[in-house]
Amino acid sequence: MRINAKEFAQKLTESDNILIFMHEQPDGDAMGCAYALHCALKKLGKKSRVACFDEPPRNLRFISDLIEFEEFDPALIVAVDVADLKLLGDNWRDYEGKIDLCLDHHTSNTEYAKYTFLEDRAAASELVFEAIQELGVDIDEFMATCIYIGVSTDTGCFRYPNTTSDTLRIAAEMMDRGIDAQAINKQMFETKTKSFVKLEKLVNETLELHFDEKCAIYTITRKMFEKSGALESETHPITAASRQIEGVLVGAVIKEQKDGGYNISVRTNGGLNASDICAGLGGGGHKNAAGCELSGTLTETKTALLGAVGRALEAEAL
Amino acid sequence: MRINAKEFAQKLTESDNILIFMHEQPDGDAMGCAYALHCALKKLGKKSRVACFDEPPRNLRFISDLIEFEEFDPALIVAVDVADLKLLGDNWRDYEGKIDLCLDHHTSNTEYAKYTFLEDRAAASELVFEAIQELGVDIDEFMATCIYIGVSTDTGCFRYPNTTSDTLRIAAEMMDRGIDAQAINKQMFETKTKSFVKLEKLVNETLELHFDEKCAIYTITRKMFEKSGALESETHPITAASRQIEGVLVGAVIKEQKDGGYNISVRTNGGLNASDICAGLGGGGHKNAAGCELSGTLTETKTALLGAVGRALEAEAL
Repeated sequence: MRINAKEFAQKLTESDNILIFMHEQPDGDAMGCAYALHCALKKLGKKSRVACFDEPPRNLRFISDLIEFEEFDPALIVAVDVADLKLLGDNWRDYEGKIDLCLDHHTSNTEYAKYTFLEDRAAASELVFEAIQELGVDIDEFMATCIYIGVSTDTGCFRYPNTTSDTLRIAAEMMDRGIDAQAINKQMFETKTKSFVKLEKLVNETLELHFDEKCAIYTITRKMFEKSGALESETHPITAASRQIEGVLVGAVIKEQKDGGYNISVRTNGGLNASDICAGLGGGGHKNAAGCELSGTLTETKTALLGAVGRALEAEAL
Repeated sequence: MRINAKEFAQKLTESDNILIFMHEQPDGDAMGCAYALHCALKKLGKKSRVACFDEPPRNLRFISDLIEFEEFDPALIVAVDVADLKLLGDNWRDYEGKIDLCLDHHTSNTEYAKYTFLEDRAAASELVFEAIQELGVDIDEFMATCIYIGVSTDTGCFRYPNTTSDTLRIAAEMMDRGIDAQAINKQMFETKTKSFVKLEKLVNETLELHFDEKCAIYTITRKMFEKSGALESETHPITAASRQIEGVLVGAVIKEQKDGGYNISVRTNGGLNASDICAGLGGGGHKNAAGCELSGTLTETKTALLGAVGRALEAEAL
């Protein structure tokens, strides 16, 4: 059943011993939501703790490290920023039918919870901000830090198309509560490890432009990972860069896998469908971001990818 | 003489035939200021035009292309976002003592104008927003686009340390005026020209790390501009990248000038003062972003820069 911010707050006010669940591989928005809400509940004198089947990423552990939880038997389970129960992780079945409340901003939310507070906003943290206001709790600096991290990370620091004027105003309010936005932005958006700088330099050498420069391909080999010391998890900005080149409709990164074969990440601009391109190669994903894995040599992989991209560009031209 | 927003607006209200000067190599903030102010003056029925000794950068020409100027003999000359008269460009001496009004956000402003409206804000466009409000002019979608471009480009889309809650609130207000922030952000922050991609590759080869990897220096030669086809106005992301490397406190880009000599852009993290570093070399700017120009060879330029950086790092360590 759908509820609004006021009703969501009301249900929390009426409860105690509250367990707040984040999705697996929690990101800035999940962490921001969960910890801000936890602190608000504590301020109301309630028992609360945050749960997740995965560790927070390294650059967000300063949030979880600051909070100690007490043990209790949960009487109310809340899921925040979780679009589908399966996103809780491997043990999701244990919680089937057991989630009382859900706060989320994904329109694809499967409404697995008894009550769902859902709005199509840039970040779930925007909704937590509203819920906390309904709870009548004053937002302190730590809570403001959590909410700022939520809204900033889910919008690429306010540059992605999901950013609205509400997002900016909420971020402004959080800044006025004395948070160190400068340090957060530096840490989240303006830091490249030295190993990544090395990897980037090597990968930039591999840029190929095909189909009248409408398709850009970068290649990352195991040797480049070894030589640079960069981690697999650091390659995201290279994937993003592949579609940033002016005139490029399809950007792709071919990444050699540890156990042989190649992983391909495809990003598209405009009308071209990345998911369709990857589906033809046995993969899938979203309209503008998809992927697939191919066995075979680099030459075979590139040939297969170029075939799929060529077909997509031809279909687009028709 | 220093004046405030109200007095600045008053002086404009009392005048007509107004020439608005931008600095050479105009950027988003200079363009945003100048064109928003021009439109406000037009709405008040005044004659106004924008002047600059350089062409706008390619990705900002959609602003200048939309506006046609009429000819007139200027009765009032206003400089916006110009910290020093010399920044007007080669012909700056023609305007010595002739600038009536200046609106600026650089604390290093040399107060070359008769009246200076100066505040230490993220972008000069924030001050233009205030001045236009004082003028009593309603901000339309085009003016809002100009102001949004000003505040967003000078803050790296709200991620640089100069961003304040005021910056975010002004951007939010501009978004509420119906601007296409999505298209602007894609164009300004998520698009690289092919010539820039080529330049970036060449420049990445020049990375030097000094002082225990606390100082990163990139060098851009005329040859690299020729080889890549990139423009001077496209080098901003390289300057930003120089301080993004983990552990780097001072990032610098040394850019060979057309007529010999070198331009240095300095960016700092944390407590180090970029303006102080550049002041020692005859330049100036903001706390975390400053610049200077040096004649002499590349080796001499680098030696001078490293000397200034070394002194700043030593002072910081004390």
